[in-house]
Amino acid sequence: MNKKKKIFVMGGDGFCGWPTSLHLSQEGHDITIIDNLSRRNIDNELEAASLTPIQPMGTRLATWKELSGQSIGFHNIDIAEEYERLLQVIMEEKPDAIIHFAEQRAAPYSMKSPKNKRYTVNNNINATHNILCAIVESGLDIHLVHLGTMGVYGYGTAGMKIPEGYLDIEVTSESGERIEQQILYPTNPGSIYHMTKSQDQLLFQYYNKNDNVRITDLHQGIVWGTNTKETKLDERLVNRFDYDGDYGTVLNRFLMQAAVGYPITVHGTGGQTRAFIHIQDTVRCIQLAIEHPPKRDERVMIFNQMTETHRVNNLAKLVSELTGGEIAYVDNPRKEAAENDLHVKNDLFLSKGLDPITLEEGLLREVTDIAKKYAHRADHTKIPATSTWTKDQQPGIPTAQEGIK
Amino acid sequence: MNKKKKIFVMGGDGFCGWPTSLHLSQEGHDITIIDNLSRRNIDNELEAASLTPIQPMGTRLATWKELSGQSIGFHNIDIAEEYERLLQVIMEEKPDAIIHFAEQRAAPYSMKSPKNKRYTVNNNINATHNILCAIVESGLDIHLVHLGTMGVYGYGTAGMKIPEGYLDIEVTSESGERIEQQILYPTNPGSIYHMTKSQDQLLFQYYNKNDNVRITDLHQGIVWGTNTKETKLDERLVNRFDYDGDYGTVLNRFLMQAAVGYPITVHGTGGQTRAFIHIQDTVRCIQLAIEHPPKRDERVMIFNQMTETHRVNNLAKLVSELTGGEIAYVDNPRKEAAENDLHVKNDLFLSKGLDPITLEEGLLREVTDIAKKYAHRADHTKIPATSTWTKDQQPGIPTAQEGIK
Ligand SMILES: NC(=O)c1ccc[n+]([C@@H]2O[C@H](COP(=O)([O-])OP(=O)(O)OC[C@H]3O[C@@H](n4cnc5c(N)ncnc54)[C@H](O)[C@@H]3O)[C@@H](O)[C@H]2O)c1
Ligand SMILES: NC(=O)c1ccc[n+]([C@@H]2O[C@H](COP(=O)([O-])OP(=O)(O)OC[C@H]3O[C@@H](n4cnc5c(N)ncnc54)[C@H](O)[C@@H]3O)[C@@H](O)[C@H]2O)c1
Repeated sequence: MNKKKKIFVMGGDGFCGWPTSLHLSQEGHDITIIDNLSRRNIDNELEAASLTPIQPMGTRLATWKELSGQSIGFHNIDIAEEYERLLQVIMEEKPDAIIHFAEQRAAPYSMKSPKNKRYTVNNNINATHNILCAIVESGLDIHLVHLGTMGVYGYGTAGMKIPEGYLDIEVTSESGERIEQQILYPTNPGSIYHMTKSQDQLLFQYYNKNDNVRITDLHQGIVWGTNTKETKLDERLVNRFDYDGDYGTVLNRFLMQAAVGYPITVHGTGGQTRAFIHIQDTVRCIQLAIEHPPKRDERVMIFNQMTETHRVNNLAKLVSELTGGEIAYVDNPRKEAAENDLHVKNDLFLSKGLDPITLEEGLLREVTDIAKKYAHRADHTKIPATSTWTKDQQPGIPTAQEGIK
Repeated sequence: MNKKKKIFVMGGDGFCGWPTSLHLSQEGHDITIIDNLSRRNIDNELEAASLTPIQPMGTRLATWKELSGQSIGFHNIDIAEEYERLLQVIMEEKPDAIIHFAEQRAAPYSMKSPKNKRYTVNNNINATHNILCAIVESGLDIHLVHLGTMGVYGYGTAGMKIPEGYLDIEVTSESGERIEQQILYPTNPGSIYHMTKSQDQLLFQYYNKNDNVRITDLHQGIVWGTNTKETKLDERLVNRFDYDGDYGTVLNRFLMQAAVGYPITVHGTGGQTRAFIHIQDTVRCIQLAIEHPPKRDERVMIFNQMTETHRVNNLAKLVSELTGGEIAYVDNPRKEAAENDLHVKNDLFLSKGLDPITLEEGLLREVTDIAKKYAHRADHTKIPATSTWTKDQQPGIPTAQEGIK
């Protein structure tokens, strides 16, 4: 194992943050979770809940202590609003690294209403900025690892392999000379949520340039799967599984729909190509990022954190074959191209030793261990995707003919 | 004259917003100012004030009514915080256009402390986002004109003429083919303030793409001069003139320093090249932008709103020649290249009929009509630039040897 580090996990109660906290604790690091539990409050607001029976933070941490002997700290702090408390815990506990998951992360939720748009922008930008500001004010040399998204790239780069954050370009000078440059990849975000991640990139670029903050930005694909080695140890450690129209991501929604006999609902033609990664690989990638910080005077390090790409309708067919569920094609509530290709570089993580779990090998386990096991907990009324990108679009709800039961 | 329009001026109490409001009112448009007077409150906080004796909003508007017969409306609304009130006035008054000046606009102020950094990010991003969100929620087809800054481009584009917002690039495809594209110019902002303007651009790009909001973004150079045709009509209409270390921009500071016998204080070598525009041309450019809105399905229109570029030490010499003031070179409190070239395209405004006022013809008037006339109002202790970009830098204060009196 690497040197033991003191690590803050911002958003450590969430879908990616919780298994990451356990994995790094298992690896011997000293973990403190900071989370304002806003995601659980949004469950209340949406009257939707995790398919899996997630436990309160107190139970989660006591169970982990019981099983592993390791203590994980916890502070309930809103990092977008409570700057002074954030700064204080940083000054007191002096983390070597901060992993930043603490943002509103659902594109449909971010598009639901003006209130949701405004909450997402305000929460995400201030959360990220407060962390950067506090790192500089603390005077400590803290490595920041942030979770970004593949979605910032946009899905329209026909013919070009998406590089890891930076793009080689040529421009023509006044005298007609060609100049080669490397720039931050020009983003084309597809929702207010994704747009905040583009704005985060500018914050990182600036604080890295002005204050030499060491930053790793992980442009993550859609995470699928539920449990990791650690969360599987005891049902009280189970990770959250979102299946509702706002927070459920495409593959998990398909699995759940099939398990409860709801049509596997494809938005538009299903020709959209997306990038994926299993939750077990997410926690492993974050460990690798923590173990390989950039140098103090190095620019922001950007990794593409994904392992495979698939067209949405191929995923639907795959799930349908595994489960016998039927597929329904409905209007796309998002504003996006009907079809796109996606070729993504992910050499950086592979070069650091990532050995990915493929969809082919993991999908069936997910069907039996999660979707079927907890199907009785599902609220079918929460399955449709009701948020639309503009007022004149239709929600993604199958009609009777399309096989609603 | 063009068709009479209903226009909201957000930040209409400020240095650019006030003369713009008067000019457009003079042109026959129906103007409503929205401003939370935060700039006057920052005067209180910094214990600094405009060199010119600006009047309260009530006096300003009554004077204008008396002289021109035109009424200008006013609402004291914090557009970053009071979304519902903002939406309500938009729904009630149904403006054809909104001109958005309402941001914290001083780079040194934005770098002064963590509190100031956080205020600038929070105020500017939420102000811009709330306006966009309210335009969409209102369902009205409102043209948004925003004041951006030349500072987003960064000052290091050696050999390349800075285009108007968009950059032509070539990239290489997977198969080795060259692909030509036009992208949003990759920004390299030099302060937290400038960084918020880069973030604004992403908001504009997104709302234009998703909701077809018509947007003109004016990348403005440093504004110099004080009065316009309208603000000169009566001393009660006088525009603000900032000379303090935080809000005073370089040329106005030089003029004032010379007028009160303080050394003309150049940061670093003075080799920095900057873009300038006279306040009279600012109001004229904004009028042109209002008269030439982009079409409903057109991308964000970006203009470079500047008329000439100068090296800082050449400006210092110019002011020194006009006034006999002596020059002091001090440490640069900013983090920036010691020297840079700057070649900027501004064809769009020239093509629409802008006939710029040059520094050469206007500078002397500024010395006599403003700097000398109001020199007795200056507080000399507010002249030094005390904000530094990092903790280990020195403020820009001349020492005794450098000629402080
Ligand atoms: N899940 C995915 O498929 C996916 C894909 C790409 C990127 N990401 C990114 O990974 C990160 C984590 O995603 P997730 O799926 O675990 O989301 P999640 O919503 O399950 O977890 C986010 C956690 O952050 C907390 N949080 C939010 N705002 C906070 C604030 N102001 N102060 C304190 N805590 C706050 C929430 O309470 C929640 O526990 C996000 O930034 C997301 O954008 C996720
Ligand atoms: N002055 C320059 O040299 C210059 C150069 C380039 C760009 N700009 C841009 O032009 C715009 C105007 O600049 P200025 O010099 O007139 O600045 P200013 O500070 O004099 O005026 C800004 C006005 O906006 C108001 N305001 C700020 N936040 C607000 C909020 N949340 N709600 C309501 N009102 C708010 C302030 O009270 C003030 O009256 C700014 O966006 C600035 O970035 C200015």
